[in-house]
Parts: sequence; C-alpha cells; structure tokens
Amino acid sequence: MPQNIPIVENILNANDKLAQTNRARIDAAGVFSINILASPGAGKTSLIEQTLPLLKGKLRVATVDGDIATSIDADRAAAAGAGAAIQINTGGDCHLDAVMLFGALEQLDLTQFDLLIVENVGNLVCPANFKLGTHKTVLVASVPEGDDKPYKYPGTYRGVDALVVNKIDLLPYVNFRMDYFTQGVQVLNPGVTTFPLSCRTGEGLDAWVEWLVQNAKKSAS
Amino acid sequence: MPQNIPIVENILNANDKLAQTNRARIDAAGVFSINILASPGAGKTSLIEQTLPLLKGKLRVATVDGDIATSIDADRAAAAGAGAAIQINTGGDCHLDAVMLFGALEQLDLTQFDLLIVENVGNLVCPANFKLGTHKTVLVASVPEGDDKPYKYPGTYRGVDALVVNKIDLLPYVNFRMDYFTQGVQVLNPGVTTFPLSCRTGEGLDAWVEWLVQNAKKSAS
Repeated sequence: MPQNIPIVENILNANDKLAQTNRARIDAAGVFSINILASPGAGKTSLIEQTLPLLKGKLRVATVDGDIATSIDADRAAAAGAGAAIQINTGGDCHLDAVMLFGALEQLDLTQFDLLIVENVGNLVCPANFKLGTHKTVLVASVPEGDDKPYKYPGTYRGVDALVVNKIDLLPYVNFRMDYFTQGVQVLNPGVTTFPLSCRTGEGLDAWVEWLVQNAKKSAS
Repeated sequence: MPQNIPIVENILNANDKLAQTNRARIDAAGVFSINILASPGAGKTSLIEQTLPLLKGKLRVATVDGDIATSIDADRAAAAGAGAAIQINTGGDCHLDAVMLFGALEQLDLTQFDLLIVENVGNLVCPANFKLGTHKTVLVASVPEGDDKPYKYPGTYRGVDALVVNKIDLLPYVNFRMDYFTQGVQVLNPGVTTFPLSCRTGEGLDAWVEWLVQNAKKSAS
C-alpha cells in the first residue's frame, strides 16, 4: 500500500465553500455583517429603515436586499440613508445563497463601510438552509404572525443568533401570548439575544442599535 | 425507418400527473376542494377555525394541514368541528406536493364530505409551484404584512383563484394603503374574487362562506 495518501473529506458543499470566501472578504474589510430572515411582511425592511437614521454618525452601512421581484426594498434602504443599497432579484428563487451575495459584494467597496446588512427573501423556511458568509443571522418575528411560530418553524428559530420581535405596538389588538412564544424560542435556542420592539413607534430600537454598534466595534478591531 | 413510432411528449411532470389523479378522486366523490396558501401567520388556520362553525349543517368538511412540524393546525381544525383533520408534517419541506396530498387522501373516505380544505405550509413562494389537484387555490393575505406584497410575490398572487384579505380589524393601527394593494393585485390577477375580512371580529366571513357553499353545490351536482 502506498503511504501518505491524502484523504479529502467533502465537508463543505459548494454554497458553504463560497460562503467562506464571502466571509473572508467581509472580515478583511473589518465589517460586521448580518443576514436578516423573516416571514413576508414581518418588517425586515421597516427595521432597516428605522435603524439607519439611528446609526448615522456611528456606522457606515451598506445593504443588500433580496426579493423575488422589484427594487422596493433597496429603494427604501437608500432613501433611509444606506451608503450603498444593492438589490438582488432572485427571479423566483425563495432564498438568497452565497453565489448571490458574492455577486453583490463584487459591486461594493467594503472598506467604505462598518456594517453590511443583508435582507433575505421573505420566507421562514428555505433561507435558513443557505449560509451566506455573514457573521450573524437575525430573525425578525412579528406579533401579528402569532405566538406559535417557533413551534411550527423550528429549523429557522433554532439556527439564529438574534431575534427581533417586531410590532409590539399591536399586542393590545391581537391574541399573542408572549410567554408561550418565549417558551418555544427558549427550547429551540436557549438564551438567544432578543429585541422586542416596534418599528412603528420606535420603542425598543435603542437596544437593537446598541447591539449592532458593539458588534461592529469588535469586527473593526 | 420503421413506421408509426409513437412519440410520447413529456407534458406533465410527476407531480402534475399525480395532481390529476388526486383531482379525479376528489371529483368522483363530488367534493369541492381548495388549497390555501399564505405567509406564516397570515391566518390560514384562524380562517379555517372561524369558517367551520359557520358551515355547520351546510357542508361536511375535511381538512388536511401541512406544516414543517407539530399537529397544532390539525388539532385546531378538529376542535373547530372538522369531520376529519389530517396533519401532514413535511419534515422540513417548504411546501405540500401532490404526493403528500395523495397520502392524506388515502386516509379519508371522501364520500362522507362536501368540502376538502387543504392548508399549505406557510410560505409565499414555493407552494405556488406545486399543484395538488384541488379545484381552487386561495391566497390569504393579511393587513399587517403590508400593502406591497403583490408586487414582491407576483408569482403567487398571479396564480390564485380567490384572495382573502384577513385582519382588516388592524387597518387603523398599521400603514396599509388598500388602493395600492388592490392595484398590485389587479395588474397580476384582474378581477380575482376577493374577500376582505377579519377572523378576529367575524366581519366579512359571510361572503367567504357563501362562496364555499355555492362552489360545493356546483361540485356535488
């Protein structure tokens, strides 16, 4: 038998491999990056819209917005003050993947930014299966979606690094048991950083913004 | 060259073929069937819950509920009075397909029912690509999701036979321009039957129930 035959394990698929490339590029620029997941209409774009003015003078932000169609989201991000806003139209695909983000990064001079916000396609299932290369995955849940969502979409709730619970201003008008929701979250993702907030009233946005600023400081150092 | 070589065109994929089988089975029993699509939390299960008591004495209803995990939805349908409630756990799949419905139909004596309600996985993208064999596809939109959804999910809005706009009781509390929403719907799906309603207050449910009853009468005759 010949000696020292190298064994190459197929640990990563093509998407994950390219996600590593994306990450290296983002890291080299000292940028902090997040991938925002949510159901359609949970408030991903509204969150970005409300967050950007609060980051003015603190962080320089680039956004990459994924949608089946239109540039509505990138338009909103640009209007809210994003230093660069790139729209990816997936043309029917139900998620972003590392190839799409790779293409978007080609359009960006990352050294001009401190924070990269990637807004995924509105979908609580498929995006969770595709790494992009970002540092943290953030799930935006919303009160009117109902308190049973952690139980029904466990894969997505299990895999995220932070959880925004948006539209808390609607709590008086819907049946949403926060304790039942939190219990479901804690079983799947114990201790996950959670930000209850309202993009409409602004309540709770400070803690979220502070989290972004602190993480960006760590990435830059 | 040999004569009369039969040419078989691959018109239908396997899913569509099985959807035809499902449809034949449903038609043979004289049952009217709908496939309900929506974002997570738009109110598919709530709609079924509120509809079943209103159909009591009018239609005998069976439900098939698709979810990534749990039997929460079938439990709710059964509690609300479904004559049979079957839960399909897709085990991660982001949509129902004709094979899954075929399996569910195996568990049902369709001759005992007038209406079959299939509740798809909460997802505004993928379910639209898989025919099940039902007569009509119904999309449940909801007011807090926002008025831009037709523009951002055109494939789904284009393909449906009826549109329920749920949670109209929340209109005073959110930014939802009904005319902008309706304009987007009309471009994609001119004249689609639309039911603005609230599962919470019951407003608008009568017209929806009447639509089901009339369609079921046609299927039975």
